[in-house]
This record gives sequence, C-alpha cells and structure tokens, in this order.
Amino acid sequence: MLDKKPLILVTNDDGIQAKGISSLIQAVLPFGEVVVVAPDKPQSGMGHAITVNDVLRMNRSPLYPELQAYACSGTPVDCVKLAISEVLDRKPDLLVSGVNHGENSASNVLYSGTMSAAVEGAMEGIPSIGFSLLDFDPDADFRGAQQTVKKVVERVLSNQFPKSICLNVNIPQLPPEEIKGIKICRQAKAYWADNFDKRYDQFGKPYYWLTGDFNRDDWSEDTDIWALDNGYVSIVPTQFDMTAYHAISELNQWGL
Amino acid sequence: MLDKKPLILVTNDDGIQAKGISSLIQAVLPFGEVVVVAPDKPQSGMGHAITVNDVLRMNRSPLYPELQAYACSGTPVDCVKLAISEVLDRKPDLLVSGVNHGENSASNVLYSGTMSAAVEGAMEGIPSIGFSLLDFDPDADFRGAQQTVKKVVERVLSNQFPKSICLNVNIPQLPPEEIKGIKICRQAKAYWADNFDKRYDQFGKPYYWLTGDFNRDDWSEDTDIWALDNGYVSIVPTQFDMTAYHAISELNQWGL
Repeated sequence: MLDKKPLILVTNDDGIQAKGISSLIQAVLPFGEVVVVAPDKPQSGMGHAITVNDVLRMNRSPLYPELQAYACSGTPVDCVKLAISEVLDRKPDLLVSGVNHGENSASNVLYSGTMSAAVEGAMEGIPSIGFSLLDFDPDADFRGAQQTVKKVVERVLSNQFPKSICLNVNIPQLPPEEIKGIKICRQAKAYWADNFDKRYDQFGKPYYWLTGDFNRDDWSEDTDIWALDNGYVSIVPTQFDMTAYHAISELNQWGL
Repeated sequence: MLDKKPLILVTNDDGIQAKGISSLIQAVLPFGEVVVVAPDKPQSGMGHAITVNDVLRMNRSPLYPELQAYACSGTPVDCVKLAISEVLDRKPDLLVSGVNHGENSASNVLYSGTMSAAVEGAMEGIPSIGFSLLDFDPDADFRGAQQTVKKVVERVLSNQFPKSICLNVNIPQLPPEEIKGIKICRQAKAYWADNFDKRYDQFGKPYYWLTGDFNRDDWSEDTDIWALDNGYVSIVPTQFDMTAYHAISELNQWGL
C-alpha cells in the first residue's frame, strides 16, 4: 500500500508523561515508524490554542529513549506545527492524538486539545485521529482503547482517507471483550451547564474554579453519546469548515 | 421587539485595554445595557481554550467606571462562561466579541479567541457576533468597523437569529465611505503554511517563534477572502456542529 513504512506522528494533550500516550505509542508501533511530539505538561481544555505571544521550547524526551520523542512547552496544536515544520523530514502518513484520559464526545470536541491536534493534522492534509477513553483516572485501564486503536489504524492505513476531515474516536470504559463494536456517529447536541466554585484566598479576594454538569439531552441513536452509553466505540467524522451553509440564504434576506 | 432594553455582553481576545473593544463598546452602547467581561491581558490565538487546571480571577475594571466592566485572568471563552454564570442576572440578548485587531477569515476562525467567544455564546443559545478588523495596529482606525457593528447589530436585534450559529464578521481596513457593502460568505479553504523562527538563548539552547504565511488559495467569489479583498465586509454564519455528515456513509463502508 505504501512503499515506505508509514510515518506516524503521535501527540496528546495530557502531556508526554501520561499513561494514555504510552498506551497509544504501544498500540501503533507495529504499524510504522513512530515519532512523538507532545506537551511537556498537561494541556487539557486548550482547544485549538496556539502560542503567539511567547516562545516555544522543544527537547528530546528521556521517557522514550528508543524513539524520536520530543516534549514541547506549547499546546497540542503547537506540537503538531513544530513536528511538521521542525522535526519530520516528510509529511506523516498518519497522526494519532491521545489516548485522552476522559471523554471528548458531543460539544467537548471544541474544548479538546486532543481533538484540536487531530483537526490541525487534517488541515495539513494528514489522515488524523483523536482517541479518548471515558475514564479520567491517570491510571485508567487502556486495554479496550488499545484494541480500538489497532482496529481503527489498520482500517485508516488500508483505505483512502476522506479529504478535509479527521476522526473523533471515543472508547467506553469497558474490558475489550465487552465492547460491542464501533458506530459511525454524529456529534450529539449536548453541552455543559457551567458552574463556578467561588472561593476566597487568604486575603479575602475571590477566585473561581470552572466546574459544571454535562447536559446529555440528545439521545438519538445516531449520536456519539448514544453509542458510548450502549457499549459501542463512537467515531465522528469531524470537519474544520465551520460555515453554517444552511443559514446563508436566511441571512441574505436581512438586506445587510 | 423586546420589553426590556437589550442586555449586551461585550468581550474580546486582545484584552480589556485594547482600542478594539473600546470602539465596540462605543458602537453598541446606543442599543442597550452593556456589560463587559474581557481578558485582563492579550489572549490572541487562544481558540476555544478554557482554564481547567488553574483558578480564575475576575475584578471590576477601572477602565470603564460607568459600566459593569470586569477584567478576567482567563481566556475569552472563560470570560463568556464567567459572565453568564457569575455576573449577569439573565441571559444576554446579544453577545459581541472584538473588535479584533487582525483578520479572522478562512481557517483563522479555529485559532481565534474572538470567534471562540462568539461560538461559546452560540452554544449558550445567545445571538453572538465576532467582529475583526483587517489591521493588527494597536492604534488602528476603527471607524469603518464601528459603522459595520452598528449596521449588523441593528439587523440582528430586529430579526429572528438563526439557531445554533454565530456570525463571523470581518471588516476591510478602509474608511467607512469606501466599504462597498456586506457579503454573506462561506469560510475560504485557506490555511497557514507554518514556519518557525529558531533562535538560541544566552545558554545556546534553542527556542522557537511561530510564524508563517497565509496561503490564500481559494479565491471563489462566495468566500470571505474574496469579499474582503474586494472591499466588502464578510459575514460567515459559523456553526459548532463539526460533524462531517458527508463522510458518514463512506466510513460505514470500511466495515469497522
């Protein structure tokens, strides 16, 4: 299929020290040559942020001495940009991001550094996949995720990847043998109801922690949330053209 | 149309001290009650980032003593969330973000804190608009932008706003009388070709500045880039459902 061994770029948003990226590296190693460029610290919730007002550092990571592995001071999207511009001598055949410690279904795709790295890869024309496990535990069990990674990567490398999209893969927290299968889904219309935990510091000044509840109010069978709740892996093909084409004619009626 | 005076939430990503937000506040003041919650420092390129691993601070800003105006330590999206949860006693009738010092056309929408604040507003069900001027100068001339803000806000407040979208408004750097009009557009398929400026510090260690060239290679007349290049304001209706619906059937062929 490919003349050369596939070149696989690995990144994440939990940082290069996370168990999730270690599990991902193990799962993709049999498929090609692996290069890692990942944040040097947790970068959860960074969305599509890039570092424009500060410098970036990037150093070889001692965590993976057998690989070309770099820890970067920036965001997940910075990591992808640095990898392509400064580390790799050719465009990778595949970008995989994750495995995220925690869910990135529904509207979480917008806040997710894991998924933004995959979206950035897609903008660069690279087949790109973000993987997330429904378990925030730093020591989560990634066996089901690894089984999923292997299956999805095998199919991605042996098919023509659709243009201008990436894949948002979420994996239920189940032992591999209990995962019922994989569903291709749409992003559920489910959002966070935010709450802030307001506290006071030693000077009596207020500060806030962002908290909230995820309102799962779109349970249609074609959604990622339904799939995950019913024991399936969800895959949402995810695009970066954010134009709401259906609204163009309506806005044209406004006589602007 | 509304029983009460419209409640208008103003934010941006260049920070509460920027000329752009001052110009925006001036332009929207005649339309309703204005509340400002904006970053306390520049937050360009923050995309849809939220602050999950640190606390947030929010204090009354002395810059706008006549208004309810707060400076927040977080990202533009944090500002929107804090405003809705902690500052406002009802859901605003309108959210305006900007006026950004610099363009947010084409794929820039993904990196833009200005637009991510508007997207967050849309997710909260608020009619939301991001405004950007094609001029990075801190002392840019915002007269054309202010004329545009007034026209667009007037139409938004007097029409039913489409569900689940926000507006991405870019304004060419022209005197008001030379702006040819407003075009409803799609997001151009134009992307950054990244370059990093690699330098060495006083210890001989490398660091990187993100730079790049914007490849304007989609010049169709229905794009935002075309409109701006031809003297028009561009408005792209922008959605947050990132599902690539057209790819679902193709992926179902893969037998995953």
